[in-house]
Amino acid sequence: MAIVLGPNQYGKAEVRLVHVDRSTPAHRITDLTVSTALRGDFTAAHTRGDNSHVLTTDTQKNVVYAFAREGGVGEIEQFASRLGRHFTTTADWITGARIEIEQHEWERITVDGREHDHSFVRSGRGTRTTVVTVEADAVHAVSGLAGLVVLRSTGSEFHGFPRDRYTTLAETSDRILATEVTARWRYLDADGMSGADFARLAAGIPRALVETFAAEHSLALQQTLHQMGEAVLTAFPEVAEIRMSMPNKHHFLVDLEPFGLDNPNTVYLAADRPYGRIEGTVRRDDVPEAPAAWYGTPGFC
Amino acid sequence: MAIVLGPNQYGKAEVRLVHVDRSTPAHRITDLTVSTALRGDFTAAHTRGDNSHVLTTDTQKNVVYAFAREGGVGEIEQFASRLGRHFTTTADWITGARIEIEQHEWERITVDGREHDHSFVRSGRGTRTTVVTVEADAVHAVSGLAGLVVLRSTGSEFHGFPRDRYTTLAETSDRILATEVTARWRYLDADGMSGADFARLAAGIPRALVETFAAEHSLALQQTLHQMGEAVLTAFPEVAEIRMSMPNKHHFLVDLEPFGLDNPNTVYLAADRPYGRIEGTVRRDDVPEAPAAWYGTPGFC
Amino acid sequence: MAIVLGPNQYGKAEVRLVHVDRSTPAHRITDLTVSTALRGDFTAAHTRGDNSHVLTTDTQKNVVYAFAREGGVGEIEQFASRLGRHFTTTADWITGARIEIEQHEWERITVDGREHDHSFVRSGRGTRTTVVTVEADAVHAVSGLAGLVVLRSTGSEFHGFPRDRYTTLAETSDRILATEVTARWRYLDADGMSGADFARLAAGIPRALVETFAAEHSLALQQTLHQMGEAVLTAFPEVAEIRMSMPNKHHFLVDLEPFGLDNPNTVYLAADRPYGRIEGTVRRDDVPEAPAAWYGTPGFC
Amino acid sequence: MAIVLGPNQYGKAEVRLVHVDRSTPAHRITDLTVSTALRGDFTAAHTRGDNSHVLTTDTQKNVVYAFAREGGVGEIEQFASRLGRHFTTTADWITGARIEIEQHEWERITVDGREHDHSFVRSGRGTRTTVVTVEADAVHAVSGLAGLVVLRSTGSEFHGFPRDRYTTLAETSDRILATEVTARWRYLDADGMSGADFARLAAGIPRALVETFAAEHSLALQQTLHQMGEAVLTAFPEVAEIRMSMPNKHHFLVDLEPFGLDNPNTVYLAADRPYGRIEGTVRRDDVPEAPAAWYGTPGFC
Repeated sequence: MAIVLGPNQYGKAEVRLVHVDRSTPAHRITDLTVSTALRGDFTAAHTRGDNSHVLTTDTQKNVVYAFAREGGVGEIEQFASRLGRHFTTTADWITGARIEIEQHEWERITVDGREHDHSFVRSGRGTRTTVVTVEADAVHAVSGLAGLVVLRSTGSEFHGFPRDRYTTLAETSDRILATEVTARWRYLDADGMSGADFARLAAGIPRALVETFAAEHSLALQQTLHQMGEAVLTAFPEVAEIRMSMPNKHHFLVDLEPFGLDNPNTVYLAADRPYGRIEGTVRRDDVPEAPAAWYGTPGFC
Repeated sequence: MAIVLGPNQYGKAEVRLVHVDRSTPAHRITDLTVSTALRGDFTAAHTRGDNSHVLTTDTQKNVVYAFAREGGVGEIEQFASRLGRHFTTTADWITGARIEIEQHEWERITVDGREHDHSFVRSGRGTRTTVVTVEADAVHAVSGLAGLVVLRSTGSEFHGFPRDRYTTLAETSDRILATEVTARWRYLDADGMSGADFARLAAGIPRALVETFAAEHSLALQQTLHQMGEAVLTAFPEVAEIRMSMPNKHHFLVDLEPFGLDNPNTVYLAADRPYGRIEGTVRRDDVPEAPAAWYGTPGFC
Repeated sequence: MAIVLGPNQYGKAEVRLVHVDRSTPAHRITDLTVSTALRGDFTAAHTRGDNSHVLTTDTQKNVVYAFAREGGVGEIEQFASRLGRHFTTTADWITGARIEIEQHEWERITVDGREHDHSFVRSGRGTRTTVVTVEADAVHAVSGLAGLVVLRSTGSEFHGFPRDRYTTLAETSDRILATEVTARWRYLDADGMSGADFARLAAGIPRALVETFAAEHSLALQQTLHQMGEAVLTAFPEVAEIRMSMPNKHHFLVDLEPFGLDNPNTVYLAADRPYGRIEGTVRRDDVPEAPAAWYGTPGFC
Repeated sequence: MAIVLGPNQYGKAEVRLVHVDRSTPAHRITDLTVSTALRGDFTAAHTRGDNSHVLTTDTQKNVVYAFAREGGVGEIEQFASRLGRHFTTTADWITGARIEIEQHEWERITVDGREHDHSFVRSGRGTRTTVVTVEADAVHAVSGLAGLVVLRSTGSEFHGFPRDRYTTLAETSDRILATEVTARWRYLDADGMSGADFARLAAGIPRALVETFAAEHSLALQQTLHQMGEAVLTAFPEVAEIRMSMPNKHHFLVDLEPFGLDNPNTVYLAADRPYGRIEGTVRRDDVPEAPAAWYGTPGFC
């Protein structure tokens, strides 16, 4: 028996980058948080403190900023791929890279009915994300969104569940359904996609998720999750699978009887903890799985 | 010399209330975090543990939910006033109440080009706030907004500042200006305002703040703050004064020279800490100050 | 009527400074977050963007680091005073300064029963704070602690409170009492105190607060707050007044009857929100109040 | 091609439980945050909203509280196993359970030199964690700690790294090394361990980690991570593998030359973002891997 080094990676986390494209009077800003991680042969650093293979995390940060200047940013999947390819080709002992990017959205401010050229307000409809994994012979892109909070004030039921000794929950045919969607979807062929493709899907998939949440009656949050995933896979053949994590943000009807009042689904307490947590995957049955694409990313998001 | 009890208050903080108005097919939801605080004669509780004057914080929470059912919520300033008046008239030893409300904004989800009746997405353009103070003979309303993040990619200069032994900052005629606005404005006559008035100002004042930020060239964040406050007082005679706290969210131009690259105001590092913090008041010179309206609320916001 | 500039201040917030004293083999580390704010005549910056009076926040940050090197840090009250005096004497238009410092505590790691010379672990028993306000003719020091979480599993009652239409809470003679103490105390004569004085009180006052919380039976959180304040004023004549904010972190007994189980004060649900919030001041009746010492600091902490 | 449901799980997250053991005058409190997740056949809920297999998350929460009363809590690994076994035996379609527990530590308050019977203060030296996965034929326990912040003020070097076009970092033979340790270790035979075993290891492993961090000179954070893991595996044969994630919390020496000051490793800026992130596994080479033990838990911690 020996004690040995197992899987490992290292990199620079949460590099905050804002890029301003001034090529037209109407500036375009791109606001990113970039995290890099390198994989390969770093054994000597671990066992002897020999850093001859350690491309420093400071250098990784410098590459992020320099590449933003040299080639611009473009879509986050493209930027992540460029970074990942650079690191995996810069030294033969670096065999893989995982680049994670969050994009913080800004909208133009409207002044006198016109969108302003260079003044922006931070949008709050969730964050666009990507995790690109570059290996010797493959590039995986798992894109997603985080922080999208949605609520239905009716059109949600919950009944028919099993009851045992520990069950006290009442059945309901009308409840508030609220959740904060975290979704990650894997592209079938990230290498074959253009910037325009990534942009189109980054807009279209969240829209499909939100519209499906809004439009479909719900008998269970699991059903809603599945409908949302199905809508994405149906509309977008570029997507191999989608994984979602959706907390059930409970809204409890307040008991107002002690005060002589009824409460016909009107006054709710919005609870913080505990919350239900529903996690699931919707996928195509004819595409190979790609565990490498998800390695190091929480299972269901 | 004696050791005595000084100013004190107590209440229930962060009551989470969601109200659904189902009176029309298009539901309206109101999502609030309400904090109550009572002032008056609570000496016996402090000195002897005698609770005969202590209207419990649990009861205060119950009142929040019951009043939401009994009279609906309406505008947050109205709801806060109703709560405050109730507490100050419920017992003669309760002489004042401070009610603080945050309103979390939701927008309707659009499905097939139509706004959905009962499906909503959380908006991210800041939170509407109010602090209503009810005293025996006065009601003060200090309303505001929090969490509004704005950025100009040009049209901001900073120069002409004094230099001493500890000054290293370079002057600049083109920088990114970014801030997260927290503003609180005091209404001259809260008692005389209707729900429609509060709604109109709750929409109009943030718009004036954002548009002024967007439209006006800036020589100093102080100047921008002052312009924003002036715009509000000019447009809205209902406002006696406005206080703002605006962090200067620094965006530093990255030095790319070591990599043989220029950086013509293109690639920035968005810094977290430290940050500048600019705080100021803009007010009318002919209205009396109202320290009671601000008591217990952080100085400039 | 005119629209005019009211009270204002500006500075650098949250400068993160770690000072290592290597003068003995056993290093001493001081880990601070420092926020500065200057008051005075900054009207031109607000109204015209004329920065000739604006000692930049970048310079303020530089002063923090330079002073840490030049004179060392010492006790945080001393360091804050040095900074405040520097700013108020550096230009005649700067008439006041408010310096707020949080000190993050570290303990030595014990290896083989001996305290290590240069290895430390972050302690979690709250943060030491100070707010020093320097004016032309006075220096105020309001020191405190934040983030101290304490709990009694018995010895806490709550009954005798008034009941009205909205009261549902049951009386109890045995509950869990838990709170997170935020306290700020004002020194009578900060100018006359030495570093040793500040160090002694920074250790002694939190100890008095915690021991009083632990030792005294409680009939109301208000009573506990008052006992804690009284203990401090009794033991430390240097203190003019103490203000405390103490959330009542509710622990609800879980109803296990549906499962055929009793619950003799054994199994509790620790709730997040809402929470009670108890705020109060204990002071000496023969010392003048000092509103300037508290200006810009939340009322009760 | 068909669109199908992939892996999924659901449960109740962050159930806050405080258990008071009053069997002796000196109370013992156990303060936990428990998250449950069930795996098995929940297809009908996803595809048809048929909840006949959905043991509700509300029921799962009830079980947590009821079991705390029925059998007490004991060590968190035992409590998690009991919960997991209950769920997997309660219905034949529930084939797996993942129970995650965080334990918040409290210490007795000392009054007059004696530990108090029922008054406690929250300790800040990190949180104890466990993830227990129960499957039909196996129980895995991955225990750990989170939030342990440590710092060395000297005895840390970093040099010998490769330099390329994007490298600007200087080599150093004396830097501050600071990190916040998140560690998770897998027990070889969780089923064969007693409560006393879990308690002994829950105390011993963090001590080994901290002491190794303190005692060993560092040439790279990777080396320190490896030394810490090796120390655990060497001292505790019960551990199959340990995974650690350690941010490099950068402390930059401040350049004081512009102010005519030297800075002999004395004054540092503690940076927030970006930070290095070092992640690695140390394991025995003769024990089988257990991916099921880690499923749904972030890769390296």
